[in-house]
Amino acid sequence: MEKTKNVLLAHGSGGKLSQELVRSMFVSELENDLLNRMDDAASLNIGGGRLAFTTDSYVVSPIFFPGGDIGKLAVCGTVNDLATSGAVPKYLSLAMIIEEGLPLEDLSRVVQSIKAAAAEAGVQIVTGDTKVVNRGKADRLFINTSGIGVIPEGLDISGVNARPGDVVMLSGSIGDHGMAIMAQREGFSFQVPVASDCAPLNGMIAAILAVSKNVRVLRDPTRGGLATTLNEIAGQSQAGITINENAVPVKDAVRSACELLGFDPLYVANEGKMIVIAGADDADRILAAIRSNPYGAEAAVIGEVTAERPGKVILRTALGARRVLDMLSGELLPRIC
Amino acid sequence: MEKTKNVLLAHGSGGKLSQELVRSMFVSELENDLLNRMDDAASLNIGGGRLAFTTDSYVVSPIFFPGGDIGKLAVCGTVNDLATSGAVPKYLSLAMIIEEGLPLEDLSRVVQSIKAAAAEAGVQIVTGDTKVVNRGKADRLFINTSGIGVIPEGLDISGVNARPGDVVMLSGSIGDHGMAIMAQREGFSFQVPVASDCAPLNGMIAAILAVSKNVRVLRDPTRGGLATTLNEIAGQSQAGITINENAVPVKDAVRSACELLGFDPLYVANEGKMIVIAGADDADRILAAIRSNPYGAEAAVIGEVTAERPGKVILRTALGARRVLDMLSGELLPRIC
Repeated sequence: MEKTKNVLLAHGSGGKLSQELVRSMFVSELENDLLNRMDDAASLNIGGGRLAFTTDSYVVSPIFFPGGDIGKLAVCGTVNDLATSGAVPKYLSLAMIIEEGLPLEDLSRVVQSIKAAAAEAGVQIVTGDTKVVNRGKADRLFINTSGIGVIPEGLDISGVNARPGDVVMLSGSIGDHGMAIMAQREGFSFQVPVASDCAPLNGMIAAILAVSKNVRVLRDPTRGGLATTLNEIAGQSQAGITINENAVPVKDAVRSACELLGFDPLYVANEGKMIVIAGADDADRILAAIRSNPYGAEAAVIGEVTAERPGKVILRTALGARRVLDMLSGELLPRIC
Repeated sequence: MEKTKNVLLAHGSGGKLSQELVRSMFVSELENDLLNRMDDAASLNIGGGRLAFTTDSYVVSPIFFPGGDIGKLAVCGTVNDLATSGAVPKYLSLAMIIEEGLPLEDLSRVVQSIKAAAAEAGVQIVTGDTKVVNRGKADRLFINTSGIGVIPEGLDISGVNARPGDVVMLSGSIGDHGMAIMAQREGFSFQVPVASDCAPLNGMIAAILAVSKNVRVLRDPTRGGLATTLNEIAGQSQAGITINENAVPVKDAVRSACELLGFDPLYVANEGKMIVIAGADDADRILAAIRSNPYGAEAAVIGEVTAERPGKVILRTALGARRVLDMLSGELLPRIC
């Protein structure tokens, strides 16, 4: 592709161009040890303790969808990003950019949903900001939530920590969120309705950390899907990751919808799933802990970390072939989160 | 005014309707002790220490203007909000919502400006997020910065603390930012060019706190201007505030521009000014500390806190008359920050 001079939709896909933009424009210019690590949450040493700090803007369209809305998404997404560092999420900020003309009733529904999600996750909204822009200068509602969590002493969970011999687990089926948004946006109806999996996973992660001291990586496969997130981890840790296609849970309705629309579920966004990479000896008890959580009933071991093919993700297909599973390139589905 | 069912531009003005929306929709629903206080930064007790946490989204149009750009504004605004709690600003998050088609060169200029402002303020950008929305669904670039600062032990600075007998100081002239944006947006040119005062004020605040233990309130008069911010403080503290019109510094060029356009400089936004309310005995040394800072040469005592007219701001005019100075009502200048 010719080098572009303008920002493309794919720069926000979570895939290759996103990584390129973030590395070349942001991390290289603003660089410091914390930013350079490129985890979902930065880990800060403050006053003897360690804090996790993260931010995400949500621009999902439409703002209401089966299984959630932009408010629930904004709370769960940031809670999950904090939890992926092993932190206990505590405080969230809430900043809204509202398009003039948004019905106050819609805003109120979103706030109710934020309230419910925050209560479920056990976090407080402690500071906020409201901006309004003229009609046509935004699209209904954009939300930024930033979050602070407390990292328990002795924990070091990061994408850099995956090591050969570790097992790769996934907390449930993939592609639900992306296909739910797609169906809602385009007015498709599937035989079996697909709902977003949007959920706060900090309870699940607390249960995992309670049964294992050998958790290396926690990461939620959002934009770019499972394939892209695994590639990020492989890149950060410079280990190889092999995944068994057969082992990755995909709901029938999601699989059919993906086939119909030409999507690969491995690249479709999730908002309530967790990748857990841990020492093999602890796999059984971690799996049991995940499955005991309401959002983890379908958890499965989906692969392993290898010494071969460092930095790459390999897919062992249903037929036994092996192929390199790359990051998302281009844009699959804009404004998914 | 008839009760509206939709969000209006004035809901984002920083004035009366903003307050109403924030109170009725956000604070009442998401309420907790920290949010209810309604300071610019929340003060969190974590691990023995106290942290300040704040968030702001920036939607200023145009994104480049005399004296700064949206990047410098996003760093300075959040640094200043942290500093108003007495905190030493430490870590910022950076989340961008980019409209498809933004020239990468413009994005790069903004990032350079963020880098320079962060270096001057002594803060690190430690975590970030990038979203891209389709052409026409945002306006070039919106930025959210959230920030964490450390509050030194023993400090309690808040809008609730103003008390009768305190003096009200202002670090310099008002209206510069608002009129600079206005001129740039509308293509006006004034005889003497007006530039935004956008600047990080944490150095100034450190100097103030080094010479006085009787600082009650620090607040930067941004959206809604000096008049609106003083009203917020009067409301929070339930004290009266009297201001001498003659004592409030306004640059000649800003005054002329305001007269021409029918604006009252008391309601025009600032991005590099600080209101300091402190015990009267410390006024001289605080004033000296502010004036010794590069951004505080024109600092002045502009009024006092009174027991009479609790919750109200009174303006003593140049001719000696007194009138109630209300919050901004309606919207003066949308997308000023």
